[in-house]
Amino acid sequence: MRTSQLFLNTLKEAPSEAELISHKLMVRAGLIKKLGSGLYTWMPLGLRVLRKIETIVRDEMNKAGAQEMLMPTIQPAELWQESGRWAVFGPQMLKIKDRHDRDFCYGPTHEEVITDIARSELRSYKQLPQNWYQIQAKFRDEIRPRFGVMRAREFVMKDSYSFDADFAGLEVAYGKMYTAYSNVCTRLGLKFRAVAADTGAIGGSGSHEFQVLADAGEDLLAYNPDSDYAANVELAPAFAPETPRAAPAEQMRDVDTPKQTTCEAVAQLLGIGIDRTVKLIALVGGEGQFIVALLRGDHSLNEVKLGKVAGVGEFRFATEEEIRARFNCPPGFLGPVGIASDITVIADLTVNAMSDFVVGANKPKFHLAGVNFGRDLPEPTVVADIRNVVVGDKAPDGKGTLDICRGIEVGHIFQLRTKYSAALNATYVAEDGSQKHFEMGCYGIGVSRIVAAAIEQNHDERGIIFSAAMAPFEVAVVAVGYHRSEAVKAAADALYNALIAAGVDALLDDRNERPGSMFADMELLGIPHRVTIGDKGLAEGAVEYVARAGGEMQKVGVADAAAFVRQRLAA
Amino acid sequence: MRTSQLFLNTLKEAPSEAELISHKLMVRAGLIKKLGSGLYTWMPLGLRVLRKIETIVRDEMNKAGAQEMLMPTIQPAELWQESGRWAVFGPQMLKIKDRHDRDFCYGPTHEEVITDIARSELRSYKQLPQNWYQIQAKFRDEIRPRFGVMRAREFVMKDSYSFDADFAGLEVAYGKMYTAYSNVCTRLGLKFRAVAADTGAIGGSGSHEFQVLADAGEDLLAYNPDSDYAANVELAPAFAPETPRAAPAEQMRDVDTPKQTTCEAVAQLLGIGIDRTVKLIALVGGEGQFIVALLRGDHSLNEVKLGKVAGVGEFRFATEEEIRARFNCPPGFLGPVGIASDITVIADLTVNAMSDFVVGANKPKFHLAGVNFGRDLPEPTVVADIRNVVVGDKAPDGKGTLDICRGIEVGHIFQLRTKYSAALNATYVAEDGSQKHFEMGCYGIGVSRIVAAAIEQNHDERGIIFSAAMAPFEVAVVAVGYHRSEAVKAAADALYNALIAAGVDALLDDRNERPGSMFADMELLGIPHRVTIGDKGLAEGAVEYVARAGGEMQKVGVADAAAFVRQRLAA
Repeated sequence: MRTSQLFLNTLKEAPSEAELISHKLMVRAGLIKKLGSGLYTWMPLGLRVLRKIETIVRDEMNKAGAQEMLMPTIQPAELWQESGRWAVFGPQMLKIKDRHDRDFCYGPTHEEVITDIARSELRSYKQLPQNWYQIQAKFRDEIRPRFGVMRAREFVMKDSYSFDADFAGLEVAYGKMYTAYSNVCTRLGLKFRAVAADTGAIGGSGSHEFQVLADAGEDLLAYNPDSDYAANVELAPAFAPETPRAAPAEQMRDVDTPKQTTCEAVAQLLGIGIDRTVKLIALVGGEGQFIVALLRGDHSLNEVKLGKVAGVGEFRFATEEEIRARFNCPPGFLGPVGIASDITVIADLTVNAMSDFVVGANKPKFHLAGVNFGRDLPEPTVVADIRNVVVGDKAPDGKGTLDICRGIEVGHIFQLRTKYSAALNATYVAEDGSQKHFEMGCYGIGVSRIVAAAIEQNHDERGIIFSAAMAPFEVAVVAVGYHRSEAVKAAADALYNALIAAGVDALLDDRNERPGSMFADMELLGIPHRVTIGDKGLAEGAVEYVARAGGEMQKVGVADAAAFVRQRLAA
Repeated sequence: MRTSQLFLNTLKEAPSEAELISHKLMVRAGLIKKLGSGLYTWMPLGLRVLRKIETIVRDEMNKAGAQEMLMPTIQPAELWQESGRWAVFGPQMLKIKDRHDRDFCYGPTHEEVITDIARSELRSYKQLPQNWYQIQAKFRDEIRPRFGVMRAREFVMKDSYSFDADFAGLEVAYGKMYTAYSNVCTRLGLKFRAVAADTGAIGGSGSHEFQVLADAGEDLLAYNPDSDYAANVELAPAFAPETPRAAPAEQMRDVDTPKQTTCEAVAQLLGIGIDRTVKLIALVGGEGQFIVALLRGDHSLNEVKLGKVAGVGEFRFATEEEIRARFNCPPGFLGPVGIASDITVIADLTVNAMSDFVVGANKPKFHLAGVNFGRDLPEPTVVADIRNVVVGDKAPDGKGTLDICRGIEVGHIFQLRTKYSAALNATYVAEDGSQKHFEMGCYGIGVSRIVAAAIEQNHDERGIIFSAAMAPFEVAVVAVGYHRSEAVKAAADALYNALIAAGVDALLDDRNERPGSMFADMELLGIPHRVTIGDKGLAEGAVEYVARAGGEMQKVGVADAAAFVRQRLAA
């Protein structure tokens, strides 16, 4: 396409309400335009990006044997009443009454509708498995929509649903979707991780979130940069140190810490590393019993892990009053030495391997140094992994060490099992003649959210950096002086036509603008490859190539330019 | 695709509620599935058809220089209040309140939203012209949705809107859309006509409906089978007979017609053609004055044309009481001879050319024969075209004679002029520096309705007959005995693979079903070309080709089959 035929309207300033960089850049580049709160129009340039993502999603879904259909956005309340979700979905569901005062909603998701289709269309095990998907507008009435298309009310989603005869079949379907989602993210050029999610009460082995790694993400992830391992920090295991606990080398002694109520402050005062300190966290268990958790000074408590330790169950942090009453000591100076023997002491795996450590003295303004288990205090009641992993911890897959980052969830795959097929009594006739409920999975990709997530991950001070797979155009041919130089016009047209003929999605910038303004637009838009054609270069028989993602400008012979670009696109 | 990988679920019986043949066939073929009143899921096969239409629509829109975007389906009430349509659109608009009790609607159309975008994005004449379109779900809350996707509540529409600096620009944009819509219908293989529509109060030279010719249509059209002329019957002009009125040859005489109150009955009694009779229709004008219209016995009054006759304006049919009071005669025997001279007599052009005609005698149980204007009664007060055209009338374009048929409206193009740009104060800076309102056009295609319209036009007792352009598959390769004959399997796979490699959208029916059942499915689905491969044919080195639209079965050499099919597709 030629810029002269394209509706292009870039802005110098982002709207003041835009907080996220992706939101700012998408508005400035003219990809989206706000219609109302959480409602965005995809302008021609933005829609090109959205469609490229859709095409890749569709291709991977089809390869996985899924079949596309299109359900209505407007759904009758009766199905949601049957599943029980009409009452419990909450105000995110946009409820609607039609002219006959009947209840409907704008589908926030389609489990009910697809299960209704399956129960009438799929009658025999011979028709299984099936995986049906659609790419469609969804609506979720967010209370305070922000962040542009990252959390819009109306958004584009690919949702799919698998129907299998048994759990083994579901696991196969799930595995295919895991692969398809991984392929989508890879083809889009995204740094991502498939993160095992806590399946909570529903059970089943499977739920994974596909997280695009970016600072603006809501989720904190532990991942291995050298493998595909990733988990929510809450779920990543920490291991005992490889070096076992050393023998005591120091005597336990009081240390005067008049104002030092944190491990950092104590370590600083003593001139030691914080990894020589231990902190005590006082908790109250479900039956009112006191529990103390011991963690290394620089570690943080992982409440999910602690809750899973045998005998703990539900717990809460002790109040200051409770602490003073039980320990006769203010928080900040608590320690495990000399505490009542009926208090359960749970030591983290790391603490259990420590010797000669520093800990609160259980009296105001004092800590103890040179403390050792088995000598100065009993061995811990329980030793367990109760901390959050930190950067540099050993990766659970044994292939290196963990890094920590934030992630933006763009996909979620989930083993529903028979939750909806049982609720809607969706059954098939099994091979043995019995009626069985379908084993179902559901799989969602936030197609429109991917655009924002990709930009959060890939941008610089000049704008968006798109991968070729999702860029509005793969290459920009910037013709400097198109309207005044016959040579520039001829060379630019020739290169553009050669690229189009080769199937390259090229944009010829044929505007009568200053070069700086044209470059700035192409950079803001994130077009990954740029060829500049001007009289000066042509005098030497050359054009200039530069990659949006960085790297030196290169001179390329005019005749070689099309082949050069194609080579870069294939790289 | 292989049938074994396709969700195919054909039905022997259509749902009892389905009235239209297209609705019945779409459900039986498994193209659509009802979710609720006026709400349909496009099943995998149906979605293939829908997408093929979308692709052609998109291609023609892009060729016309239009640019695709995607607006939200949910629209804020404020814009509709600004245009004044929030109050007047009526219950077809699905009105919605969000969680904050703010008013929205599910877009039935997008004039307001697009005008809002234009007024902030288009500021200068240099940015004009623009034509923006989208392909998207719309919702119109029909009071009694029927006829499947022909008149669904949620449906897929391509809507576009053009913005021009002046009326000349609008006419260019309009012309491009006229061409694009014609191309879409032609490429889809539809018999259609672009019909000039009455633009009513809005004015502008332009509004055309694109009508697919089919018996189930709601609109009655007059068209020229030998040209592209077409008009709603109400708007097609009728001309005066080429032969002028002959001199009187008979004397006026009473005819005894004791029970004959219609022209048909009188003509039959007298043994003459009905085209020798004249009927009188008694009307009351806006000021209470009596008007009589004279039409040939076999013609019907065109109220639109009569209303445009000078001095008539609004009118109504006289009641029987008014007729008896004014004429002292019951309806059925009325005639123009001897009526009061203050009654306006409007004769149709055809009647004006008649002599020696038969007409009511204005007394019960009698007609008059041999009646002539200027001798037995005065010349008509007014002579005008006030009848509906009939089959065989001269076509207004002079290229033959008219035929009459029904049409299904699948597209509508309309010159909005400044209706919305004025209402929303959407202006641009013109070349002379003044602020001007955009000249707008709007253009809609009912993408989902086209599927139903095409089927209404093209079907037989065995099912749908799709054109290759919109068929779910272009060709079906039916393998008889795929699971028991190595030869059949090898030949079928080879042909299928050759077709796919050549870019043909082929379906390989590899099911283990009776041949009759496979043939019936492929015919019901309307796949335009079918190749049957079986052991018997292979023994002779041949496969069988048959076209869905009719024609003899042909034997084709196994090795030539792929080339043969491609040739048929190119034909």
